[in-house]
Amino acid sequence: MTARETASATRRLAILEAARTVFLRHGYMGASMDEVAALAGASKQTVYKHFIDKETLFNELVLTTLRATADSVQAEVLDLRDSGDLAADLRDLARRQLTRVIQPDLLQLRRLVIGEAGRFPELGRAFYELGLGRTITALTDVFRNLTERGLLTVDDAPLAAEHFNWLVVSIPLNRAMFFGDDRPATPAQLRRYADRGVDVFLAAYGTTSR
Amino acid sequence: MTARETASATRRLAILEAARTVFLRHGYMGASMDEVAALAGASKQTVYKHFIDKETLFNELVLTTLRATADSVQAEVLDLRDSGDLAADLRDLARRQLTRVIQPDLLQLRRLVIGEAGRFPELGRAFYELGLGRTITALTDVFRNLTERGLLTVDDAPLAAEHFNWLVVSIPLNRAMFFGDDRPATPAQLRRYADRGVDVFLAAYGTTSR
Repeated sequence: MTARETASATRRLAILEAARTVFLRHGYMGASMDEVAALAGASKQTVYKHFIDKETLFNELVLTTLRATADSVQAEVLDLRDSGDLAADLRDLARRQLTRVIQPDLLQLRRLVIGEAGRFPELGRAFYELGLGRTITALTDVFRNLTERGLLTVDDAPLAAEHFNWLVVSIPLNRAMFFGDDRPATPAQLRRYADRGVDVFLAAYGTTSR
Repeated sequence: MTARETASATRRLAILEAARTVFLRHGYMGASMDEVAALAGASKQTVYKHFIDKETLFNELVLTTLRATADSVQAEVLDLRDSGDLAADLRDLARRQLTRVIQPDLLQLRRLVIGEAGRFPELGRAFYELGLGRTITALTDVFRNLTERGLLTVDDAPLAAEHFNWLVVSIPLNRAMFFGDDRPATPAQLRRYADRGVDVFLAAYGTTSR
């Protein structure tokens, strides 16, 4: 990268960070490119050079945030293939997955995207595919593999992958959708949701009866 | 009711119906009391006499819609106490519950409320309590009862109630949040999600091993 390219990339990141603050504070409709520019310490012209309009900036913000999270989830899920202690490793994965899904910034973006899904159906779809979609694909792959090794009894791997995911995340995630940042779940509650979700999953798809 | 009170109640309903159309079409920020009045065939003055401002009208619309759904869910859940064939009755309940949760109007209101949860935390909380909250309370009661009768092995009834609910509804509900009205689940898919969710629930909380 030339010095000029580096400076441009740095400015782009600064604009995205400013956009995160402004969109999370005011919602999509209430956010203005003026405020983003002011907060990023850039001219409006520079903001528009990087992001052609408010919709593009919002899209980029959401997709960049999601991609970073999805990459690490996917890597962790695939590690399960080498599991020596499946129950313990599933609990560990569940706890980490839940902790990530429940991050305040990601929750707020999720609320924004859901609220605007009627207006921006493509963004809704992208959020779904990049977020849950990639997790489900990785879990499906791993559950097939573990069933071949005799460690799980999964007949429909994509369905079992969804069951695993929702048994772990749905209770606190749904609360967070409606309660905003009010009364977030405690770490002890999150661990319990993860562990008990895994118990139910293994009762249905595990190989030893309880 | 006097004739005058009846006319007033009828007008109130007409305004709520118009509000449903306008809010679902434009979202909260985009909706105007002018458009609601025009669609209801009422004067703006009349609209404001019934609902003091846009926020109040939106709240009433959401809560009225939710209350109607929650009442029938609760009655159906409580019927489970007399179940003679638990697996069949749980599947039946699950299918009906899912059909109701997935109604387009309710889904759209849910998206609107989630999108505005930061601005209207009380409405978010009310949606949660009136909707899921009442279902969970009823399921908790019934699962305790069925465990006493030896038909389930539930140790933590509120948690089992949440597991039941999310095993049944989460897959299509989450898709619908992000996909808008695009590609809705087919009735056959919904039945399958309901039935397979019940299978997992019974594997964990039923009394006979599979």
